[in-house]
Amino acid sequence: MTKGNINVSVENIFPLIKKFLYSDHEIFLRELISNATDATLKLKHLTSIGESKSEYGEPKIEVKIDKDGKKLHIIDQGIGMTAEEVEKYINQIAFSGAEEFLDKYKDAGKDAGIIGHFGLGFYSSFMVADKVEIITKSHTDAPAAHWTCDGSPEFTLEETDKKDRGTEIILHISEGEEAFLEESRIRELLVKYNKFMPIPIKFGTKTETLPKPEGAKEDDPAPTQEVDDIINNPNPAWTKQPTDLEEDDYKNFYRELYPMQFEEPLFNIHLNVDYPFHLTGILYFPKMTNDLNIQKDRIQLYQNQVFVTDNVEGIVPEFLTMLRGVIDSPDIPLNVSRSYLQADSNVKKISSYITRKVADKLKSIFNNNREDFEKKWDDIKIVIEYGMLSEEKFFEKADAFALYPTVDGKFYTFEELTNAIKAKQTDKDDKMVILYASNKDEQHAYIQAAKDKDYEVLLLDSPIVSHLMQKLETSKENISFARVDADHIDNLIKKDDTTISKLSEDEKTKLDELLKEVVPSEKFMVQLEAMDSNASPFIITQPEFMRRMKEMQQTGGGMFGMGNMPEMYNLVVNTNHELVGQILNTKTRKKQERLINQSLDLARLSQGLLKGEELTNFIKRSYDMIK
Amino acid sequence: MTKGNINVSVENIFPLIKKFLYSDHEIFLRELISNATDATLKLKHLTSIGESKSEYGEPKIEVKIDKDGKKLHIIDQGIGMTAEEVEKYINQIAFSGAEEFLDKYKDAGKDAGIIGHFGLGFYSSFMVADKVEIITKSHTDAPAAHWTCDGSPEFTLEETDKKDRGTEIILHISEGEEAFLEESRIRELLVKYNKFMPIPIKFGTKTETLPKPEGAKEDDPAPTQEVDDIINNPNPAWTKQPTDLEEDDYKNFYRELYPMQFEEPLFNIHLNVDYPFHLTGILYFPKMTNDLNIQKDRIQLYQNQVFVTDNVEGIVPEFLTMLRGVIDSPDIPLNVSRSYLQADSNVKKISSYITRKVADKLKSIFNNNREDFEKKWDDIKIVIEYGMLSEEKFFEKADAFALYPTVDGKFYTFEELTNAIKAKQTDKDDKMVILYASNKDEQHAYIQAAKDKDYEVLLLDSPIVSHLMQKLETSKENISFARVDADHIDNLIKKDDTTISKLSEDEKTKLDELLKEVVPSEKFMVQLEAMDSNASPFIITQPEFMRRMKEMQQTGGGMFGMGNMPEMYNLVVNTNHELVGQILNTKTRKKQERLINQSLDLARLSQGLLKGEELTNFIKRSYDMIK
Repeated sequence: MTKGNINVSVENIFPLIKKFLYSDHEIFLRELISNATDATLKLKHLTSIGESKSEYGEPKIEVKIDKDGKKLHIIDQGIGMTAEEVEKYINQIAFSGAEEFLDKYKDAGKDAGIIGHFGLGFYSSFMVADKVEIITKSHTDAPAAHWTCDGSPEFTLEETDKKDRGTEIILHISEGEEAFLEESRIRELLVKYNKFMPIPIKFGTKTETLPKPEGAKEDDPAPTQEVDDIINNPNPAWTKQPTDLEEDDYKNFYRELYPMQFEEPLFNIHLNVDYPFHLTGILYFPKMTNDLNIQKDRIQLYQNQVFVTDNVEGIVPEFLTMLRGVIDSPDIPLNVSRSYLQADSNVKKISSYITRKVADKLKSIFNNNREDFEKKWDDIKIVIEYGMLSEEKFFEKADAFALYPTVDGKFYTFEELTNAIKAKQTDKDDKMVILYASNKDEQHAYIQAAKDKDYEVLLLDSPIVSHLMQKLETSKENISFARVDADHIDNLIKKDDTTISKLSEDEKTKLDELLKEVVPSEKFMVQLEAMDSNASPFIITQPEFMRRMKEMQQTGGGMFGMGNMPEMYNLVVNTNHELVGQILNTKTRKKQERLINQSLDLARLSQGLLKGEELTNFIKRSYDMIK
Repeated sequence: MTKGNINVSVENIFPLIKKFLYSDHEIFLRELISNATDATLKLKHLTSIGESKSEYGEPKIEVKIDKDGKKLHIIDQGIGMTAEEVEKYINQIAFSGAEEFLDKYKDAGKDAGIIGHFGLGFYSSFMVADKVEIITKSHTDAPAAHWTCDGSPEFTLEETDKKDRGTEIILHISEGEEAFLEESRIRELLVKYNKFMPIPIKFGTKTETLPKPEGAKEDDPAPTQEVDDIINNPNPAWTKQPTDLEEDDYKNFYRELYPMQFEEPLFNIHLNVDYPFHLTGILYFPKMTNDLNIQKDRIQLYQNQVFVTDNVEGIVPEFLTMLRGVIDSPDIPLNVSRSYLQADSNVKKISSYITRKVADKLKSIFNNNREDFEKKWDDIKIVIEYGMLSEEKFFEKADAFALYPTVDGKFYTFEELTNAIKAKQTDKDDKMVILYASNKDEQHAYIQAAKDKDYEVLLLDSPIVSHLMQKLETSKENISFARVDADHIDNLIKKDDTTISKLSEDEKTKLDELLKEVVPSEKFMVQLEAMDSNASPFIITQPEFMRRMKEMQQTGGGMFGMGNMPEMYNLVVNTNHELVGQILNTKTRKKQERLINQSLDLARLSQGLLKGEELTNFIKRSYDMIK
């Protein structure tokens, strides 16, 4: 038996790093600026504990393009390296100086904000550069060092005369990667990845107008000066304490995050937890539309103020991916698969923490300013309803603030609703029937019929509400939902009192036969009812169960195969209406048919079923009747 | 100045490989089966050129779970390795044996189908296993070797007594990764990644019923036998020549790809190109719906029969991502960013080759069986129209087969259409006006009015058709599209002949004043027209330009800000209609108003604008009128 060590040669690994280290070449800039930030933060820590004699000052990171020389410079004023440190940290691929630093200065802990992890970031330079130089001067007295490598494993290292503390990285950009010499491209990347990093990043200069000196004439131009163009906000709102922020600070930060967004956010939720994981962030409720898909993926994920991704699937519960804002946590494992993420126990805790925080915040907004909450309900209901359906914990908490609006613009919680309608809308079998409409216009006549009985009608119009009703029916006791056009109103909420029919049994049989001959049976089931004589003579209804199953299937769920079932309608004929008696008593069959057909057309019109040629003919007939 | 070599130590790189080599741990199985396939294909090549004395036979790859022992075995009957080869290929991370083989046997070229690239695949084992064993016997006479490594860089290597040629990999699955010991999970992965790999893969056995022996009694049970359960189809349809395939083979392969899909595909397109890149594949046109989003990402991308991804964005032109099927090309760079992909010249060529092939195929189907093509038009138009909008080359080619259906179910190409309507639908300014409807029901009365003039009306109802009309109007000469309800028909196609008005100028002024007092001006612009006396008395129209711009903005595009503009309607009053004369001559103002309002209601009904309470009231009034 032989023993040995597995080997890796730099000749084999270097090409892989160049090609495959990151799928996106642009990442190199984020990595180099993270290194520069770490170098600065390390110095900050050492000066603060007296381990460096250097003056910390107000260090910046500078990014400079040398287009003619095809070079990109990244310059920091951080801790710097001695020649020995370059040997140790740079010449050894995948040796993490940051990890070593954190091991050594455990007291600095997470607070130092050091980003680096794997010691590979620097090598991402070779994805876009065929030669890289490092010119670096340590914060100690050691002379400055100049390191050069052309992407072969060979490097050179020599003394140089750099006087200022810090490190300058010079990338000689390769052919084909010249985009990284464009001012606009670099600015775009800096804004994307480094907009909220903790050390100021200078990219060129800009002209600033100064106040006029006292005594200046009106015609005198205001003086100007060239100042550094700092592309980042080193102290973004989410890194501050909620107590230090006003409502306007949150709004301003929203605008910083989404400069192209003109609408104001509705609410914000400040996240801030230290144990059992670190997480800070601010989530915003924007105005929602009914389209569940297009609005996802607006939450940005950061780690120690470095932008990582705007795909937070798996980290934030799905129903909250419709929100916007920022989450910053060093405890979310990256570069791992989404399925792995979802199984990670830290991530699970983060996800349920966020859910709880959102529910608590909604409850407190509801309690503190119900009027405002009601006003915003239409814009946030889709998130809340989706959350109630997908997260059991959220469903329970939402009972306190989920609202059920009526067609008249009143808002009930579920408890208030049941209290309000219990007396009138409980049927003879002791079931409470909650009436609703999905469209005030289309179901107007039916809503009116319910209101005439003094019933309350909810307006439930979001695309997933049929699923929510199903869930409420099974989790609450003895309630059922019925759309106002699911049957005629006396059948929807059956009471013991029955209306006496004006027609005899014989007349009813005659009427039934006549109607069945005239009304196409494949379209409508005829149903005779003794109703109030003021109710409509003909009403078309659509049974609740079938319709709801079909709707549920359209948004995922319901019973399999229901989506393809034909629409089913009933024709309810009010035997107590004057017109119906008239039909029965009309002498000629032709006139009877005309009366029935005209009444049927009007009933169909009321349910939105009269269309195309039939509608055109109806209108033509009606013009003739006016003349 | 000092010179030196950048270093990499296996202690630093190994943890990175375990954690970050692939974002998805499950990939390890694909990698190991790719290696086993390569080992088998290498042997095939060597035996075919006489460089191996071994008998190739009918080699298989076997995957076995040892749940109690917490081990997963992958066993091949391929080329095997000597102890020296293990030292060389395994103990050196990132040294690619496949590349070396391809360098050596250049004649084998791409035909050998060797998959391996970077020599990292084997090490992905350590993502899920804390100990890995290799037991391997070379096709030469060398003794078998047994290699073991527990994830530290140390390995052991010793002789062993394996007799059969080939390699067995034994993974000792780590804690937390036990899912990879589940039969269902492994089967799922084999089906996902290896369903079409070229060497049969055995995963357990299954019972097969045999035919009864001759002379068996009826009651005798049919004999059964245990056979290998082969999970893959080593010769999928796309690897064959189109000439060797029947229509049914394409359909069967579709079912193999999408077992849960019940609908048959409409067409298939076999892709097969060798130069300047290698690409094979079969694309299918499924039935489409009008929702552009949900149906993307159904095309599967393979490399040498190994499944890679079902996200082909950037490789296939966007409008074709709605298709289904398979693309197999070793020439598509993977593991690179999408933006990089789109800039790659090979990928660009692939994309435009696919576009051309699809256009050619559509043209030939159209030419060979126009009737069938017309029948399928509704199911494919969304792809074709989207392609015409997004790819100029496709737009040009589509002129030969893009169809324009009429409301009566006739289908024209653009050229046929212009020939058919030129005579009648050219207006006095020599512009040809193409009339269309977006909904046969909703625009019925307007369609009827156009048909009464003997005009042809197209039915254009896909969501992006307003963009396509805009494009056609700018690329074809002297044509314009107008929806039938954009104005009254005599104004849509203006001829020289004018209808004489029955009303005098005085009467017109009087009528105009009356109408403007009764009709709400914020909703309708009154427009008096001397039309045919048989045309409707009141017509509501919606100007083409505004409406189309609004529609275009809803699907992306159009003029900025139009989406929020209010709907704009005109009320066209036919001064030659009897009813209009009657309104003018009615004595009391109250009666005049009633006539105008009832007519306006009917006109609104015809345009779908009478809703809610107004509709309910209209219906109530109408019931009263019947009685």
